[in-house]
Amino acid sequence: MGVGCSSSLPPTVNNPHCSITFPHTSAHTNPTSNHLPINWLARAHLQKPTKSPISKRLFTLDSARKTPTLKCGRTAQMEIEGGSDSKPILDLHSLDDNLVQKMVYDALVWSSLHGLVVGDRNVQRSGTVPGVGMVHAPFALLPTVFPENQWKLACEVAPIFNELVDRVSLDGKFLQESLSRTKKVDAFTSRLLDIHSKMLEINKKEEIRLGLHRSDYMLDEKTKLLLQIELNTISTSFPGLGSVVSELHRSLLKNYGEHLGCDVNCTPSNDAANRFSEALAKAWIEYNNPKAVIMVVVQPEERNMYDQHWLSFNLKERHNVTMIRKTMAEIDKEGEIQPDGTLLVGGHAIAVIYFRAGYAPTDYPSEAEWRARLLMEHSSAIKCPSISYHLTGTKKIQQELAKPNVLEKFIDNKEDIAKLRKCFAGLWSLDDADIVDTAIEKPHLFVMKPQREGGGELTFWINRHPLPLSFVLAFHMLTGLFYCLQGTISMVMM
Amino acid sequence: MGVGCSSSLPPTVNNPHCSITFPHTSAHTNPTSNHLPINWLARAHLQKPTKSPISKRLFTLDSARKTPTLKCGRTAQMEIEGGSDSKPILDLHSLDDNLVQKMVYDALVWSSLHGLVVGDRNVQRSGTVPGVGMVHAPFALLPTVFPENQWKLACEVAPIFNELVDRVSLDGKFLQESLSRTKKVDAFTSRLLDIHSKMLEINKKEEIRLGLHRSDYMLDEKTKLLLQIELNTISTSFPGLGSVVSELHRSLLKNYGEHLGCDVNCTPSNDAANRFSEALAKAWIEYNNPKAVIMVVVQPEERNMYDQHWLSFNLKERHNVTMIRKTMAEIDKEGEIQPDGTLLVGGHAIAVIYFRAGYAPTDYPSEAEWRARLLMEHSSAIKCPSISYHLTGTKKIQQELAKPNVLEKFIDNKEDIAKLRKCFAGLWSLDDADIVDTAIEKPHLFVMKPQREGGGELTFWINRHPLPLSFVLAFHMLTGLFYCLQGTISMVMM
Repeated sequence: MGVGCSSSLPPTVNNPHCSITFPHTSAHTNPTSNHLPINWLARAHLQKPTKSPISKRLFTLDSARKTPTLKCGRTAQMEIEGGSDSKPILDLHSLDDNLVQKMVYDALVWSSLHGLVVGDRNVQRSGTVPGVGMVHAPFALLPTVFPENQWKLACEVAPIFNELVDRVSLDGKFLQESLSRTKKVDAFTSRLLDIHSKMLEINKKEEIRLGLHRSDYMLDEKTKLLLQIELNTISTSFPGLGSVVSELHRSLLKNYGEHLGCDVNCTPSNDAANRFSEALAKAWIEYNNPKAVIMVVVQPEERNMYDQHWLSFNLKERHNVTMIRKTMAEIDKEGEIQPDGTLLVGGHAIAVIYFRAGYAPTDYPSEAEWRARLLMEHSSAIKCPSISYHLTGTKKIQQELAKPNVLEKFIDNKEDIAKLRKCFAGLWSLDDADIVDTAIEKPHLFVMKPQREGGGELTFWINRHPLPLSFVLAFHMLTGLFYCLQGTISMVMM
Repeated sequence: MGVGCSSSLPPTVNNPHCSITFPHTSAHTNPTSNHLPINWLARAHLQKPTKSPISKRLFTLDSARKTPTLKCGRTAQMEIEGGSDSKPILDLHSLDDNLVQKMVYDALVWSSLHGLVVGDRNVQRSGTVPGVGMVHAPFALLPTVFPENQWKLACEVAPIFNELVDRVSLDGKFLQESLSRTKKVDAFTSRLLDIHSKMLEINKKEEIRLGLHRSDYMLDEKTKLLLQIELNTISTSFPGLGSVVSELHRSLLKNYGEHLGCDVNCTPSNDAANRFSEALAKAWIEYNNPKAVIMVVVQPEERNMYDQHWLSFNLKERHNVTMIRKTMAEIDKEGEIQPDGTLLVGGHAIAVIYFRAGYAPTDYPSEAEWRARLLMEHSSAIKCPSISYHLTGTKKIQQELAKPNVLEKFIDNKEDIAKLRKCFAGLWSLDDADIVDTAIEKPHLFVMKPQREGGGELTFWINRHPLPLSFVLAFHMLTGLFYCLQGTISMVMM
């Protein structure tokens, strides 16, 4: 039996006009992992071995593969199936400034009362101690117009991508071979591959597999196609705050919808926090040790902790499951594996390991963290993700899967294959000389993406001044170029 | 027809042990108005003239005079009807320190996710801009044991006190005469009395009267009697955060009750935020101008703004009534009265004026604020409170009401009178030489209270060092003397 579930977040952009009217506009969260994507779908996925044919192994928690319905039917906002270019519902510049200011004030109050908060980087302890140095999370004041058919498509392909990740993860040889050249130039991926190799050597089986994934999409301006930018398989952020942002938007539309000419029912609710918790709880049940807990692996400083706390709160409140928080260093210090494979950390048996750290080289400042990762991988705990799921999320694998006849190795259903392929944006590595020439010639048609998770590792040079990636993305957004996507360059340095 | 409603907050003390384990223990809120009382009952009250006899004018919004029930019946915690001395449910010192630390962590997370926050005084804009510089509100980790019968009594007498306030407020001569000596020595009360006189002169009638009151009680250690310390008729704080604290306690008891030996059902829920909003909405409906709004009068800097925002959020969410925020200075600048008596502020017709400022001399730094107060009093808007209700809440009036045969002037029902009188703590002014001698001789038996609202205006001297009132209260609490109350001294300087 396998379990998968999908949940969606309505597409949101940070509207530049609104952002600059907010009292607090600096980025609070770590740009290497937590930048709020333009459009994303959060997806939960749990696989367990079964005797049933692989093509029928996916069991939905509730409504996976069933596209959520909108109460509004096809209104003006959602009807723009071929004509939308992901603009906010309304052009705020055309609105009365007093009205916008009122909405901003109400939104700030609402955020404070409903836990839409992050740690303020100006307050020293805000990344380590909850309840101090809080500031509203950065948010878009209103949701973005998004074509209903593309949104439904994103919901529809979510469980197919889950299935794809699971099947690719089971093909150790494919992973090792596809990443063999990356291994030579990327020390971090190389160490992940070493752990993967060790697991292959001892024939370690992950009998229960849990994925909490997030696909990031952009809508192509010219073709109006939904193009997948990346599929995150580790530390997918914002299921918690993303759900709350949707509620904020619904609250604002309820109160101001009449002035804006928008119907609150056109904004789909976002159940990601509950669905993620549900999937974690389901994994905990499958592990079948009532005394065990779920462990979330965290960075020593985490200003986006409340996004994670929403999950732990939901887990306790709705499923009576306890979640503990440990850093990689703490796991190295306190962790041990019992003869039956049970991972003990600080005396707690661990049923599920939920990674919200461990995706970037900076998460492994010493050998202690690598020891911890290996220890966890050796244990019988359900890893979210396992080393195989983690590697499956790399851009290089994404690129491999986009090659002709590769998807067919992993997915049987032709229709499913066609749906996935339709979402693939062009994806090239930098060793393709022709495409590099084209990119230099027409830079506005390309976006450069790092090989690893989290972004923010690229440095762009403009007029000899280095600019961090997040700035470049913002720059693109302000100039409107961010939506002119036709392909991505996978920056695999080989 | 008159409307009154009562709501209750379970008694809570700041347990010194827990408080000092919190990351943020400094007082965040203005001690002159917002110190969290040890035990309090929040009460809402709306009066409207009717032809029915005065003794039957009180109409309950829903469950006033009906004591809330507890699901636990009479458990060990609630049974201590004669033996409690308001201790926390458990002595935290006897608990495992890890357990306490876990509860503290969970409580801090819960507070952050559920809007139990205040502005941090270390962040400059935290008192003016919502969503920035937030920190968890100071709270007691667990509720306090409190005798069920006394709690029920407090709920029972709440509407009787409401009725008393209303009737006293209608007796302008009684108010003026009782406060005539205070007027000579207290410039602030003197100016309030001037406004009151002007209203009497023009025979101004408040046809719809709204009171949002809070009675603060202590349990006398020796007699086990519930003694009223003061009755607040203006700017009663913490209906919003108080309700959230109760939910926090219920959440902690739900998760840790088994370890603590406590049943969550023994903690009554606190509906003060909803009840206050309900009463404000009811007043808005009675005013009968669908375009009018409710105006909350605020201080220019208010770090306890989220307590107020909970009410405005509830008003909008549950009653679709808009609340705007204005300072006294803004009201002076933007306010005007139309020929029909309607108060316009910034173009908004005002149905209800809800004071969360205006109770202390510091709220009137210039003549502008006094002009604003007079303007509001002249208008047809429903004032919460009117100048009469405000004056009725002074200690001097409380003291007058405690004299023999005074209650009888205002309340007909003998049983009601007996119930109120049972709650009166001894109350003396400083012109009673005998009682002053007794207080000097046995200082631990007395608490000194200022004449006006908000506290914090007294300065105590210990070893020649001045100590603010809040420190003295904390000092008493730590030494246990805070509960040895036998009487209060009303510090009316005459």
